[in-house]
Amino acid sequence: MINSIVSSKKIKAVAKLTLIGLLALPLINQLKANSAGVDPLPSWTEGQTKNNILSFINKVTDPESPDFVPKTKRLATFDNDGTLWAEMPVVQLMFVAHRLKQMSKEHPEWTSNPAVQAVLNGNIEYFIEHGENAIAEVTALTHSGMTQKEFQLEVEEFFKSAKHPKFGVVYTKTAYQPMIELLNHLRNQGFSTWINSGGGTEFMRVIVEPTYGIKADQVIGSIGGLSFEQRNEEWVLVKMPKLLLNNDKQNKPVGISIQTGKNPIFAAGNVRNGGDIAHLTYSNSNRLPNFQLLINHDDPEREFAYKEPGDSSLKAAKQQGWTVVNIKEDWQEVFSF
Amino acid sequence: MINSIVSSKKIKAVAKLTLIGLLALPLINQLKANSAGVDPLPSWTEGQTKNNILSFINKVTDPESPDFVPKTKRLATFDNDGTLWAEMPVVQLMFVAHRLKQMSKEHPEWTSNPAVQAVLNGNIEYFIEHGENAIAEVTALTHSGMTQKEFQLEVEEFFKSAKHPKFGVVYTKTAYQPMIELLNHLRNQGFSTWINSGGGTEFMRVIVEPTYGIKADQVIGSIGGLSFEQRNEEWVLVKMPKLLLNNDKQNKPVGISIQTGKNPIFAAGNVRNGGDIAHLTYSNSNRLPNFQLLINHDDPEREFAYKEPGDSSLKAAKQQGWTVVNIKEDWQEVFSF
Repeated sequence: MINSIVSSKKIKAVAKLTLIGLLALPLINQLKANSAGVDPLPSWTEGQTKNNILSFINKVTDPESPDFVPKTKRLATFDNDGTLWAEMPVVQLMFVAHRLKQMSKEHPEWTSNPAVQAVLNGNIEYFIEHGENAIAEVTALTHSGMTQKEFQLEVEEFFKSAKHPKFGVVYTKTAYQPMIELLNHLRNQGFSTWINSGGGTEFMRVIVEPTYGIKADQVIGSIGGLSFEQRNEEWVLVKMPKLLLNNDKQNKPVGISIQTGKNPIFAAGNVRNGGDIAHLTYSNSNRLPNFQLLINHDDPEREFAYKEPGDSSLKAAKQQGWTVVNIKEDWQEVFSF
Repeated sequence: MINSIVSSKKIKAVAKLTLIGLLALPLINQLKANSAGVDPLPSWTEGQTKNNILSFINKVTDPESPDFVPKTKRLATFDNDGTLWAEMPVVQLMFVAHRLKQMSKEHPEWTSNPAVQAVLNGNIEYFIEHGENAIAEVTALTHSGMTQKEFQLEVEEFFKSAKHPKFGVVYTKTAYQPMIELLNHLRNQGFSTWINSGGGTEFMRVIVEPTYGIKADQVIGSIGGLSFEQRNEEWVLVKMPKLLLNNDKQNKPVGISIQTGKNPIFAAGNVRNGGDIAHLTYSNSNRLPNFQLLINHDDPEREFAYKEPGDSSLKAAKQQGWTVVNIKEDWQEVFSF
């Protein structure tokens, strides 16, 4: 039964692909991807975007392909906000707001701090304009002096209780189903999967394994200072109010290099403020066969629709040949709920 | 034939262990370690040090032991200089000296720089006294502005040509044979093995895989700044004259946490200037069963003999119950050559 459904799906896919005039090689690869009888990306619409992804994965994992890449070099890096889960609102900012609300009564001096006020008023635009440094500023206010363990417990508590304002689910449920399938497929094909985000490394580590199947040591993010201290006769790591690395824009290749020592052959980011241009450009400069995926948020009903001033990310995609995902068209399902 | 040799070795080991009056449990563990008929640590002298190591590895990997630790939490971190290979002289300093000699003719102003003069005169004591910052200073002089690729090629060239002044072999051959066996044994028992060194991450990455079997992304070291730039129409990472993290002493737990998000259950360092006290103390603060190894250089003939002013590392070992390796007694072989 499963086989006959798959076969029929396969036939339709082949017909469609032939109609849109793709070359023979991707077609063969597409067939091979389905040869085990299971579509690894069921939430992706059949078509060029899905085919580009599968063709690339097939050619670099097929030992007989001239584009074969050995496993140790199969790195795939993913931006988080807007690439692996929804970024309206930015989840870490909601976490900081949660904490600021708890603390602000004891800090009347915060009323004159524009970054604090922006959080309390839900003024996300302030942070888009002022960037990660503004986020780092409020994060430092709310979390410096805390032990790493205390911070982790607070993040865990936030993810258990806080709900997304539009979807009414806990934030980890706003992970994109098609991207979870893609992460799984890449790992099944011998890739190591990494996050490469402007978000805080320690914040993301709390949820990456259950949410994405990504290991704690494969999170590349903004790095806050830590101090190794003795408190109550116990040695602990304490969060410091400084940023060792702001892992955004031009720093994203730096973050990748610091943590992996390699250049990813597969990199994914999204359109919003050019945050992933350097990330994807770095992957595109790899001398090995490489692939870049750029997610364009154009689905106001199922998710969100927003554009980037100047369209820099889409222009870079065109210039460098990145594959663009238009959510409305390319994703049959957006979320698992 | 092999079996009978192993059996006879096993009998001798058991007899010796019984004589020195160890408890029954480590004895049983010791037997189990050898039950496959192969000693995983043949370069280690039979005795308490070797037995402590094998007993710990056995108890945390035995699913029926109350001290069992799941694979994902089996992190082992190793200092590099003086722990995995010889540190007389410090290898990275010899590399910098090599480069400084090439460059100094074009930089007459360097004659007044004490750090440069210390390198050119082979004055290692200057760097012990002034620490990693002094090393960072000369490294910045010699390598900032270089692309990452250029730097890697230069490091590769150094490791192919430069010879150790005492042993006359390339530096990678000064890796300690007993420690290579230990790394292999830990990996065979499901541990992930990491370097945690004050040395430069990018410098070490060039040689860690062939030398120690450690992966490039499992190197924790001092992190130099990088800039993502376009040169001759190609995007490249360029080395910057700043240090994002000086991964020494109190910063070693910070480096571990940044890169792994976890606390190692097995940590190894050495006696020289207290560089690993925080590293091993952090592991010792782990709530999971944990083990620390401290190498004491007391073998002037086969390697080197040196002490630490104030004996801080040995005192910490006694206080916290770390296992001390005395090279003269505990290692039957030091090097593979």
